[in-house]
Amino acid sequence: MRAYKKQNFPVDQIRRFIEPGPVVLVSSAWKSKTNIMTMGWHMVMEFSPSLIGCYIWERNYSFDMIRKSKECVINIPTVDMAETVVGIGNTTGAKVDKFRAFGLTALPATKVNAPLIKECYANLECKLVDPSLIKKYSLFILEVVMAHAPAHPKYPTTIHYRGDGQFMIAGKPLNLRRLFNPEML
Amino acid sequence: MRAYKKQNFPVDQIRRFIEPGPVVLVSSAWKSKTNIMTMGWHMVMEFSPSLIGCYIWERNYSFDMIRKSKECVINIPTVDMAETVVGIGNTTGAKVDKFRAFGLTALPATKVNAPLIKECYANLECKLVDPSLIKKYSLFILEVVMAHAPAHPKYPTTIHYRGDGQFMIAGKPLNLRRLFNPEML
Repeated sequence: MRAYKKQNFPVDQIRRFIEPGPVVLVSSAWKSKTNIMTMGWHMVMEFSPSLIGCYIWERNYSFDMIRKSKECVINIPTVDMAETVVGIGNTTGAKVDKFRAFGLTALPATKVNAPLIKECYANLECKLVDPSLIKKYSLFILEVVMAHAPAHPKYPTTIHYRGDGQFMIAGKPLNLRRLFNPEML
Repeated sequence: MRAYKKQNFPVDQIRRFIEPGPVVLVSSAWKSKTNIMTMGWHMVMEFSPSLIGCYIWERNYSFDMIRKSKECVINIPTVDMAETVVGIGNTTGAKVDKFRAFGLTALPATKVNAPLIKECYANLECKLVDPSLIKKYSLFILEVVMAHAPAHPKYPTTIHYRGDGQFMIAGKPLNLRRLFNPEML
């Protein structure tokens, strides 16, 4: 797996990583345990405050950890981590210490107790700011309070899930800036 | 632009198209008008019923059309339509008939009054099933009630927005089925 040299990244610009729709790894901590889950159902909901909505199934071990700690980290894995991402999604934190089992490095975060996953391209520290939709929709409204990403490469080679064990790897860039109204950029 | 031969597609399997996170075109109809908007903030929220959550800015012309008609169609464009997608996102339905301006074909849907965009790879007919989060979060909870997609190709070459006029084109497939527990597929 690659090692990225990260710096603070503006939280109001994290759409760069989330809007394209990659599979992400969500790390959490509660009492003396940590855990990691694989997540594909998420969306940007606001630039400032920097809001992300995400669906976490109540049967996931991470569900209660995030609900109770009111925190998590959204980590952006790249294609070199694809098998790890699937492994994490196919095991449960009830039985497995995922950092240990998958050889990942837990780094301390700045504003939350949940750990950063060092091997991921970017790390978004999140607070649960609205738990009111969890019961009806399993929808967690998170605010990104701190973000870490490398300056280079500017864009990660993410993986995107299509169901049935099939992924799509992020492909070529397409620059269409010239077609935008300046105020729409 | 390509022409796709579509058939009915199971609504509980539309994660195949939405979960990878493409930019989509949302078509709507209200009174005697139709409109199209470009949308990047959306997520799968349930398989059955087939729910999609999406953020629609209140200043978009489509906002009131969808809120009042309680219907829309989510259309999946492919990379050959990229310039059209940007053009639609940089004009307003208050001034422009977008089907006409961009040379797109409106086809009648089966279960909603909003039109399908013929040139798109797939069309998801949606009903607004929960408007209660629109005021606070601009969040529309939609149920896909009918879907149309071609049998081939199985996966569309979608475009994914990164902000700043920059897109990512869907790249190579990666099959990791062998690593999944059967019940996770």
